[in-house]
Amino acid sequence: MSSRRKFIKKSTVLGAGIMMAPSLTFGMSKPQDKLKVGMIGVGLRGTNHLNNVLLRDDVLVTAICDIDPNRISIALDMISKSGDPAPKVFGKGDLDYRNLLDLKEVDAVIIATPWLWHTRMAKDAMLAGKYAGLEVSAANTMEECWDLVNTHEQTGTHMMILENVNYRRDIMAVLNMVKQNVFGELVHFRCGYQHDLRFVKLNDGKSAYGKGVEFGDKGISESAWRTQHSLLRNADVYPTHGVGPIAVMDNINRGNRFTSLTSTATKAIGIHNYIVEHGGKDHPNAKLKFKQGDVITTTIETANGESIIVTHDCNLPRPYSLGFRVQGANGLWEVDGNRMYIEGQSKPHRWDEADEWLKKYDHPLWQKYGEKAMGAGHGGMDFFVIQAFVESAKQNIAPPMDAYDAAAWSAITPLSELSIENNGEPQDFPDFTRGMWIKRKPYNWIKDSY
Amino acid sequence: MSSRRKFIKKSTVLGAGIMMAPSLTFGMSKPQDKLKVGMIGVGLRGTNHLNNVLLRDDVLVTAICDIDPNRISIALDMISKSGDPAPKVFGKGDLDYRNLLDLKEVDAVIIATPWLWHTRMAKDAMLAGKYAGLEVSAANTMEECWDLVNTHEQTGTHMMILENVNYRRDIMAVLNMVKQNVFGELVHFRCGYQHDLRFVKLNDGKSAYGKGVEFGDKGISESAWRTQHSLLRNADVYPTHGVGPIAVMDNINRGNRFTSLTSTATKAIGIHNYIVEHGGKDHPNAKLKFKQGDVITTTIETANGESIIVTHDCNLPRPYSLGFRVQGANGLWEVDGNRMYIEGQSKPHRWDEADEWLKKYDHPLWQKYGEKAMGAGHGGMDFFVIQAFVESAKQNIAPPMDAYDAAAWSAITPLSELSIENNGEPQDFPDFTRGMWIKRKPYNWIKDSY
Repeated sequence: MSSRRKFIKKSTVLGAGIMMAPSLTFGMSKPQDKLKVGMIGVGLRGTNHLNNVLLRDDVLVTAICDIDPNRISIALDMISKSGDPAPKVFGKGDLDYRNLLDLKEVDAVIIATPWLWHTRMAKDAMLAGKYAGLEVSAANTMEECWDLVNTHEQTGTHMMILENVNYRRDIMAVLNMVKQNVFGELVHFRCGYQHDLRFVKLNDGKSAYGKGVEFGDKGISESAWRTQHSLLRNADVYPTHGVGPIAVMDNINRGNRFTSLTSTATKAIGIHNYIVEHGGKDHPNAKLKFKQGDVITTTIETANGESIIVTHDCNLPRPYSLGFRVQGANGLWEVDGNRMYIEGQSKPHRWDEADEWLKKYDHPLWQKYGEKAMGAGHGGMDFFVIQAFVESAKQNIAPPMDAYDAAAWSAITPLSELSIENNGEPQDFPDFTRGMWIKRKPYNWIKDSY
Repeated sequence: MSSRRKFIKKSTVLGAGIMMAPSLTFGMSKPQDKLKVGMIGVGLRGTNHLNNVLLRDDVLVTAICDIDPNRISIALDMISKSGDPAPKVFGKGDLDYRNLLDLKEVDAVIIATPWLWHTRMAKDAMLAGKYAGLEVSAANTMEECWDLVNTHEQTGTHMMILENVNYRRDIMAVLNMVKQNVFGELVHFRCGYQHDLRFVKLNDGKSAYGKGVEFGDKGISESAWRTQHSLLRNADVYPTHGVGPIAVMDNINRGNRFTSLTSTATKAIGIHNYIVEHGGKDHPNAKLKFKQGDVITTTIETANGESIIVTHDCNLPRPYSLGFRVQGANGLWEVDGNRMYIEGQSKPHRWDEADEWLKKYDHPLWQKYGEKAMGAGHGGMDFFVIQAFVESAKQNIAPPMDAYDAAAWSAITPLSELSIENNGEPQDFPDFTRGMWIKRKPYNWIKDSY
């Protein structure tokens, strides 16, 4: 056991008070110079993260894991080209990642695997004392949401949900406005994942985004695993890109919490239509009944009386939008239409273009690193989410988005499924903080973020 | 009893089959040359309608009713200036409108009174054999929704809900697109009433839209009656501007129906804040607890598997928007951002500006009457809704938006209230058509509209 892990075990005894403190170091006494990172999953998403960590001076990739040898080759090639030493390689079977977790020369892991592996791997990482960065969504079931929380509390090891949209430039500017009270007391939010994924969920088994209507064993990349969730679950299976940013603005788990939701699903015709159109009506997949409604509408209530509409809309032809609205007693921002209204500053009853406002409240982090970030993927978000992960892990402090957040955000999946199954019956959120939300303080996204 | 009323009574015996037929004449055998109209309520809204009927050659205003003598003066002045003969005048007490309904020289009435009078007056009008045009919203309670339907079926007299937004130019163009299947099978809709009404709900008791924080007995115009609904009811009290157009596009009560809804309300802070800001924290109204949540989100499910989000957002500072979205298997329109996407025609994953589409599918009615309509108020909508009412009443045929529509749309108010009171519990819609929705045919909004 490394000295760091020993220290963590000891500090755990001190109990939840310390674990909850958002910026209290209880890992190494001095921040490490280089964080030794293991990459679990180096598919399209994992290599995107790999690229970002390789660009950093303060990270060494000491191990990689993937069950696909092609992806291992690609990752090794990237590391070699970066000039870094070759990492240890794992991938002999589904559970070989546990051998990576046993390595002394791994401080932290970045997990970017199919959804069904997310919680299992994050849990094992925390049990092994590795600071865990977990791709979205974090959990598939309510039990898994609790696994994340309970394992964090049991081990004292941190996990961060790697929700990149929280670092989008407009989101951080609007968060800045929220913190400066420009919107006044917050009242209502909208968000969601509205993204035509038909060409992602179905392909030809040869290229990730090629034409074709195959998935599962005959598919490739995300279609090999993601589509099964659309086939069998009528739920918002991907809530965090929308709800993550809103939860942070609304202090969820930190003075506020999600209390209940209702959820409604439309008929499911989008994927079927796509299969018929591109594969013909006699294609075997044209006979499948996809359970996931094409548009799923979830309305969340919070302890402080706000409501949040979360949309999942991924099976119909449409341009991308996360559909954000942030509305308070003094005004609102709507991403659709790029517009802002602030009472007393905007002309009465007239929208402002949001651009000037977003520029005025541009987040200090974006002002500092914006240019550097823009090359990192997804419009710069990925740079910042990896930076926050690396900096938090180096100091072994609580991350900006932790196990409680991962659990509350991901709980939308099983709760929406239950509500839909029961004709929209409201479903209560568990209190993953076991009451601590009434005294937990918000993370300082303006000052403490990296 | 006039010969027309006798005819109606007789035709009622023939039963629902005839009453349901959307374009079968069962009133006078020949359309009347001039429709004799009684105006019940000549406040701001009523005189707007009065102005429109006075501009028509085929209408004679034979009677007016209002309990406010000032409004009577204004209306009489308008009629006098138009060159028409003076109408009979009613207004001696709340129930004097019933004397107007007894007049032989009234064929039809336009009811534009405070909400609590809507159903009562429309019911009395139908009982008196007068074709009834009823302002929105049509009913306050579930019993009143049934009153409208049952009275229509009992008397064979028609009523039309005067929902002007159904005649908005963009709405009619999009309806045209719906009917031409441009969006494909319909899946999801959004709509609502998002209108900062703080300065309407509160005024100084002297002018309708002046500053001031009075309402009820100390208020004037809408604040004298409308605000009480915000004080005591936590419900979407004004659903039809949003849901009317969507219900028509989605064939509600004509091959489809609303089946259930869930509703969520936020905290109520907007009106209180406004009172404190403009009247001071010691103003008596600052002590009131307004029950109506600032943003109310209602999600409706339909028999054919679509969902409709209806928003009520009237107590916070914000520019006006009815927030329409119409989404089908082939694409979608969103009014916010003025954008359209149609698969195979729009560039993949890119929005078109909606303008070109709306121009291409401009409704024939707007092409014919657009210029004339534009002077009529509310951007031309009021011209068309009055034209449809007058033409339907002249022929005594079922209107485009009838008692079943008025009931189903207005039922959102009591059902949302119940759902909110019960933490979002789903509420079932009654089937106001008593099963007939499975064989009722949609009104032909393209061909039969006037």
